[in-house]
Amino acid sequence: MSAETRTHFFETGSPDEPVRLRDGGMLPGITLAYETWGELNEDRSNAIFLFHALSGSHHAVGVNTAIDGVGELWQAEMHEGWWETMIGPGKAIDTDRFFIVCANYLGGCYGSTGPGSIHPETGKPWGASFPSISAADQVEVFTHLLDHFGIGTLHAVVGPSVGGLIALTFATRFPARVKNVIVIASGYKTTVLNRLHLFEQILAIENDPHFNGGDYYDDAPPLYGLVLARMISHKTFVHLDAIEKRARQDIVQPDDVLAWYRVRDQFQSYMLHQGKKFVKRFDANTYLRIIDMWSRYDATQEGDAETPRDLFERARLAGQKWLVFSIDSDFCFFPEEQAELVKHLEEAKVDVMHISVHSDKGHDSFLLEPDLYTPHISWVLGK
Amino acid sequence: MSAETRTHFFETGSPDEPVRLRDGGMLPGITLAYETWGELNEDRSNAIFLFHALSGSHHAVGVNTAIDGVGELWQAEMHEGWWETMIGPGKAIDTDRFFIVCANYLGGCYGSTGPGSIHPETGKPWGASFPSISAADQVEVFTHLLDHFGIGTLHAVVGPSVGGLIALTFATRFPARVKNVIVIASGYKTTVLNRLHLFEQILAIENDPHFNGGDYYDDAPPLYGLVLARMISHKTFVHLDAIEKRARQDIVQPDDVLAWYRVRDQFQSYMLHQGKKFVKRFDANTYLRIIDMWSRYDATQEGDAETPRDLFERARLAGQKWLVFSIDSDFCFFPEEQAELVKHLEEAKVDVMHISVHSDKGHDSFLLEPDLYTPHISWVLGK
Repeated sequence: MSAETRTHFFETGSPDEPVRLRDGGMLPGITLAYETWGELNEDRSNAIFLFHALSGSHHAVGVNTAIDGVGELWQAEMHEGWWETMIGPGKAIDTDRFFIVCANYLGGCYGSTGPGSIHPETGKPWGASFPSISAADQVEVFTHLLDHFGIGTLHAVVGPSVGGLIALTFATRFPARVKNVIVIASGYKTTVLNRLHLFEQILAIENDPHFNGGDYYDDAPPLYGLVLARMISHKTFVHLDAIEKRARQDIVQPDDVLAWYRVRDQFQSYMLHQGKKFVKRFDANTYLRIIDMWSRYDATQEGDAETPRDLFERARLAGQKWLVFSIDSDFCFFPEEQAELVKHLEEAKVDVMHISVHSDKGHDSFLLEPDLYTPHISWVLGK
Repeated sequence: MSAETRTHFFETGSPDEPVRLRDGGMLPGITLAYETWGELNEDRSNAIFLFHALSGSHHAVGVNTAIDGVGELWQAEMHEGWWETMIGPGKAIDTDRFFIVCANYLGGCYGSTGPGSIHPETGKPWGASFPSISAADQVEVFTHLLDHFGIGTLHAVVGPSVGGLIALTFATRFPARVKNVIVIASGYKTTVLNRLHLFEQILAIENDPHFNGGDYYDDAPPLYGLVLARMISHKTFVHLDAIEKRARQDIVQPDDVLAWYRVRDQFQSYMLHQGKKFVKRFDANTYLRIIDMWSRYDATQEGDAETPRDLFERARLAGQKWLVFSIDSDFCFFPEEQAELVKHLEEAKVDVMHISVHSDKGHDSFLLEPDLYTPHISWVLGK
């Protein structure tokens, strides 16, 4: 069993010096929830910043049974770290050598300031009034956390999935602060299919009878709206045949009567229950903020660059080394998306290595098959 | 411009002899809306029964500007027949030679008895109390219409998309009444992906704040629920690149503010407006009945057979000839689905021809590219 870990809280900004967001929003002081593993060395040169996926948390490694202020959303399934397979002594990201930081996104629901946090002036949750956050906003506040540690330059930024978008924007907005960039099953700019899938999920939540624009904390949360959103995205994470196989071992739940429709199909019942499990551990407003961020993601814009060439020119000048992973069965971030990123990197003459792993596990392979990623990650981090 | 056509109404069943449905439901007398083209010959041997797609109607050919009792749902975009390209003098389905019938599905919203029809006892719309309909139920009531015409054996049944499922079940439940079977871009049994996509759409409608189990006719209909359902299915009908190209000519609608999310993306705005257009012409309860029918579709079960072999043994014994079309870019009914159907037909030694057309138009190719289908259809019908 892994060691127990504890979530820390970092505060930045104040009513006098608010965190200003690119979209015009303003937050009068925020909290970032984070965890760290390993030891920061004397010259502070061994730090790695890890960015989590859409519905993930900052708790990547170890056992953490409670986070202050998070309450019921910190369900048992979250207690074990999500990247246990990749981070630890002697693992791909070696805690004997590196100091690793992972923070919950701004807008999150696992301890960082988010729509469910109390607004200091009203004494009530932000809800609908919590602003829209961009990837550039995320990396901006994360640099405050680095400054707090006195870390000038990171040995690496690492991000799978949506975390890869944040890693990319971190590396291109603060090129001098990053030596190595490792992005896994991620993208460069949302595709039409991404934007459609994300928009379906946005509509599913917004149209829920309990959503109320996001002001639902006094009442029932938008249960089926978030269930449906999760269902829509779930199918892109996992190979459908694998889901069906699991569903076959399941039984149809007798309470699966919706308003009119009676669920008689085992697979539909299974998907519904996976969605209901998810709703217990995630906040709909946070979900909406993160998929809004993802839906609008375009690395060039997030980096305030004119063209992809301009953007990655910064990476070349900083001497960054990039490692880009594709998963051949990925239906969430398709291999074409990483190919586009790599093309831009190569055109800007950035030192980049592009590795495709072959898997039947789809997008979630990065969580499940450490051996496919470990050798290259170790090698890049070890140089 | 095509000739004007008129919708006819056929009544069957009565409170004393109700239409009994396989799922236990009962309808005390129903109406079927239908149209016909061409002339029935003297020995009534030249009839073709055509079955429409999920959101289609019985109005396949000509111009029909109004249907009694349908009201606002009969929008201008419906006035022209949906298969004008394929049916007419000298066309694939030749109105100079054949008598063609197409009826709106039971549960429909274009003149056949459906959830929006008035319940004879309560004097109010059926709404939530309108029962679940199966493919076997549809073909059962369609035989009443054939009896009304005195048609014993059909020259052919023809069905694209969901219509192909009904054609299949018609041909296998009433093998002696069908000589030729033409199914286009259809299936044999819903796949996991079908069932998931359909379930997403069911949840989208059922969770709408205005759905009220289906009793919404006195009030606002479930607008965004049906918009979302349509959006989820729309992406499977058309090549996404083609949608994006059209969306680029569109402008972002200024009223696209949802509860919290502001639509800034042209493609999302376009999809939203396509969905809103659809909602004007379709009833959510009908949509739910048809996708419920589709979601549960398994040809063997609908035919009360033990195995696919038993089912298609009937087709062989009746001497039926089958023509099965696949579209290589179809993301709604994948080519694998027609391959499964053909495999079962071949195992039962049915006379079957399987043609794949190559198109970049996706599932909707059957509406748009008549030349890809006409030669084989004419040839099969003409033998």
